[in-house]
Amino acid sequence: MFEKVLIANRGEIALRVLRACRELGVRTVAVYSSADADSAVVRLADEAVRIGPAEARRSYLNAAAIVEAARRTGAQAVHPGYGFLSEDADFAEICADNGLTFIGPPPSVMSALSDKATARAWMRRAGLPLPPGSVETLPTAQRAAEIAAEVGYPVIVKAAAGGGGRGMTVVHAPGDLPRAYARTRAAAQAAFGDDRVYVERYLTDARHVEVQVLCDGNGSGVHLGTRDCSVQRRHQKLVEEAPAPSLPAAVADSIARAALRGVLEVGFTGAGTVEFLVDDADRFHFLEINCRIQVEHPVTEMITGIDLVHEQLHIAAGVPLRMRQSDVRPHGVAVECRVNVEDPDRGFAPTPGRLDRFHPPGGPFTRVDTHGRPGYVVGPHYDSLLAKVAVWAPERELALDRLERALDEFDIGGPGVRTTIPFVRRVLDDAAFRKGHYSTGLVDRLLRAAAPADDAAAGAAAPTADGAVPSGPDQRRN
Amino acid sequence: MFEKVLIANRGEIALRVLRACRELGVRTVAVYSSADADSAVVRLADEAVRIGPAEARRSYLNAAAIVEAARRTGAQAVHPGYGFLSEDADFAEICADNGLTFIGPPPSVMSALSDKATARAWMRRAGLPLPPGSVETLPTAQRAAEIAAEVGYPVIVKAAAGGGGRGMTVVHAPGDLPRAYARTRAAAQAAFGDDRVYVERYLTDARHVEVQVLCDGNGSGVHLGTRDCSVQRRHQKLVEEAPAPSLPAAVADSIARAALRGVLEVGFTGAGTVEFLVDDADRFHFLEINCRIQVEHPVTEMITGIDLVHEQLHIAAGVPLRMRQSDVRPHGVAVECRVNVEDPDRGFAPTPGRLDRFHPPGGPFTRVDTHGRPGYVVGPHYDSLLAKVAVWAPERELALDRLERALDEFDIGGPGVRTTIPFVRRVLDDAAFRKGHYSTGLVDRLLRAAAPADDAAAGAAAPTADGAVPSGPDQRRN
Repeated sequence: MFEKVLIANRGEIALRVLRACRELGVRTVAVYSSADADSAVVRLADEAVRIGPAEARRSYLNAAAIVEAARRTGAQAVHPGYGFLSEDADFAEICADNGLTFIGPPPSVMSALSDKATARAWMRRAGLPLPPGSVETLPTAQRAAEIAAEVGYPVIVKAAAGGGGRGMTVVHAPGDLPRAYARTRAAAQAAFGDDRVYVERYLTDARHVEVQVLCDGNGSGVHLGTRDCSVQRRHQKLVEEAPAPSLPAAVADSIARAALRGVLEVGFTGAGTVEFLVDDADRFHFLEINCRIQVEHPVTEMITGIDLVHEQLHIAAGVPLRMRQSDVRPHGVAVECRVNVEDPDRGFAPTPGRLDRFHPPGGPFTRVDTHGRPGYVVGPHYDSLLAKVAVWAPERELALDRLERALDEFDIGGPGVRTTIPFVRRVLDDAAFRKGHYSTGLVDRLLRAAAPADDAAAGAAAPTADGAVPSGPDQRRN
Repeated sequence: MFEKVLIANRGEIALRVLRACRELGVRTVAVYSSADADSAVVRLADEAVRIGPAEARRSYLNAAAIVEAARRTGAQAVHPGYGFLSEDADFAEICADNGLTFIGPPPSVMSALSDKATARAWMRRAGLPLPPGSVETLPTAQRAAEIAAEVGYPVIVKAAAGGGGRGMTVVHAPGDLPRAYARTRAAAQAAFGDDRVYVERYLTDARHVEVQVLCDGNGSGVHLGTRDCSVQRRHQKLVEEAPAPSLPAAVADSIARAALRGVLEVGFTGAGTVEFLVDDADRFHFLEINCRIQVEHPVTEMITGIDLVHEQLHIAAGVPLRMRQSDVRPHGVAVECRVNVEDPDRGFAPTPGRLDRFHPPGGPFTRVDTHGRPGYVVGPHYDSLLAKVAVWAPERELALDRLERALDEFDIGGPGVRTTIPFVRRVLDDAAFRKGHYSTGLVDRLLRAAAPADDAAAGAAAPTADGAVPSGPDQRRN
């Protein structure tokens, strides 16, 4: 095992990684921007290095400063968390060039998978079904229109380099396609320096189902079952659960085995997530692969008892996978919700400010991951995710009741600060959600249902349905 | 299920019960003393009734005021938590007389089991082995001396009416017996209004192993495996774990089955704990039965996935036991420590005061039960237990590392406030404890080991080995 690991992230995930390191006896180096000098991870880490100003480009995205911090402190490995540099193959290569272990898949695999066009082609070869659409990217609006006509509207134009809910535009009618095509290309060029796009049929009322996998460097891998993450606002998840409810066991098993086959085929190592859309006939379609720990990983940990960050560290240290598929025996149901500092009634706009009150829930089968504390100032610089509340129960109904109980206890507030908690409550109270019959259309439906009560607010809250405006510029995640 | 339950307790256990009620859709009534007007449970309960001043005798031990609060609010049942009135058969009868369901065993069973002499006689009939000593109580010092001579020194003189670590005196030599006998009788008379005592061989270096049981009103019951609670200061537990480590599987199984046989034999209902001492030859000896939820119940919940307070509520509502023995499948290891506001270096004396800082740990497989929050004032009136930190892991070694990690995060402090956290750390670092080979002598050994470093402090810290001075006058618990 490593003696010292640098944590190249901030917020709750930095704390999450620190906890895993400490439990394994690994010393930790926190890196931080000026805005985070007083953060929980800085306080708890064995060493902490300031790597730049608040602006992420000059701190958490500053590969050179991070590598220099590792060199100065003698860290042997870098855990990138999610977002920031976690899926940046160049950064992984820079780490390798500097004798640092990047905790993630090989750069070549990251690079290929971060390109959705390549990932789709690879997965199709591995036998995974793709949504109807183009496998290759589309050089002209004309070609895009042909594909769209072929698969039928609505379609979604997606940036090959996109991810985490960014770089996609839904198109409902042929007349809107040329503009959407041009706009997505331009946005992709601006955001990712890569303007290649492709077109897929947009599956309305589909479920977002994903599979957690773990693979070692020797070609062994396991899947840890499914998660449902259909409760999304602007393609960013709000409520996640494991296993995916109301998916026939045989389908869940097929998806999980297909996911594992796919990652093993491409030489994936570490912890990864294979994302699918499942349509109303329970057919599943490959979406993308995430090469990092996922925000919603706790629900999988809670139903399997497996600490995914421990496993990431073991795999990166060269330890063969410590479990076989038969050792993975999920039980019960876990549900997580994200507590973002944003206003659901104003289009989920961030509401930074000082937390005068911050008292998270506790008690049985309740897990909280947060970097918040009383007096913590939620700044404007980063992601609005402040806390994750996850619960476990033997059955789903009780898990939902437990999550409601936990949210009742969460005492959080400050001048101007709003959170997603009231909106999550509406999700938990929704009859279809309660039954486990819900799709990615749920959030829009709830927002529309709220509209008559207050037209002005509803206007502001109307979701744009395109992912052009991410919630935070620098910490893409989903 | 009940519509409304009154919670006749305070502190973390009141919050624990409230959580269970809320998860089951049961409305809650908190009762509180003037000292607790601003407590977490008062804030979270659906209704709250002040029942008296800080003094427990006039509030949490005030049966009439509690019953009146239930009447006024229309509560149908009373959950007594632990300590206070939880093992008071008279209170259970008063509840019944007022049409209230007391959440616990029938008063007749409580009454019989709270008398250790009766409990011992019953359990012997049920075939459970007792420690060498007298089954009947001993009317004279002469008779006590005869029994002591028969079983061999050291012996322990115990009040039949005692419990929770109170009313017992260890005697190492025959010359000390008459005085110990007289003193224990006098103390028992003062504390319990009952001066009957008996004598047992004092098993040094034994393990305190207990078994959690659940029984319904139809004669069905299950056991939920073992807990080890040998880490005690003055017969009050500090660190608890489930299952009991280094107990051969066959022995653990025998103890658990014997415990269940014992409680079924006496018509026990609800959640209970059967306590044993296990000697160095793995022979087990019945100690006592607790007719209530136990402080350390979370470790059992964590390894079984069963919410014990939910089960108490279901059983009290007349629901048949919702599981069979084969449904109880413990996995992994859970370890809990108590965070008491007291000074381990001053004989664990309470150190009341204001908590300027209070930030409990979080993250994976970590559970915190606490009524504390920043600014909370730990008063002099009640028990010094402020928080319980419990962790789970697939294996014991990782569970201990995880608990150390969690305690590292616990940021707690205020003028004059000390906690048991530093002492718990010493337990977790102890080589014998790490190996799972430890007994009730562990705490004394650690205190003695600390002595050379600071003679003055060690003098103050020397344990008295008799249980005459409890940590809190009113909330007996163990």
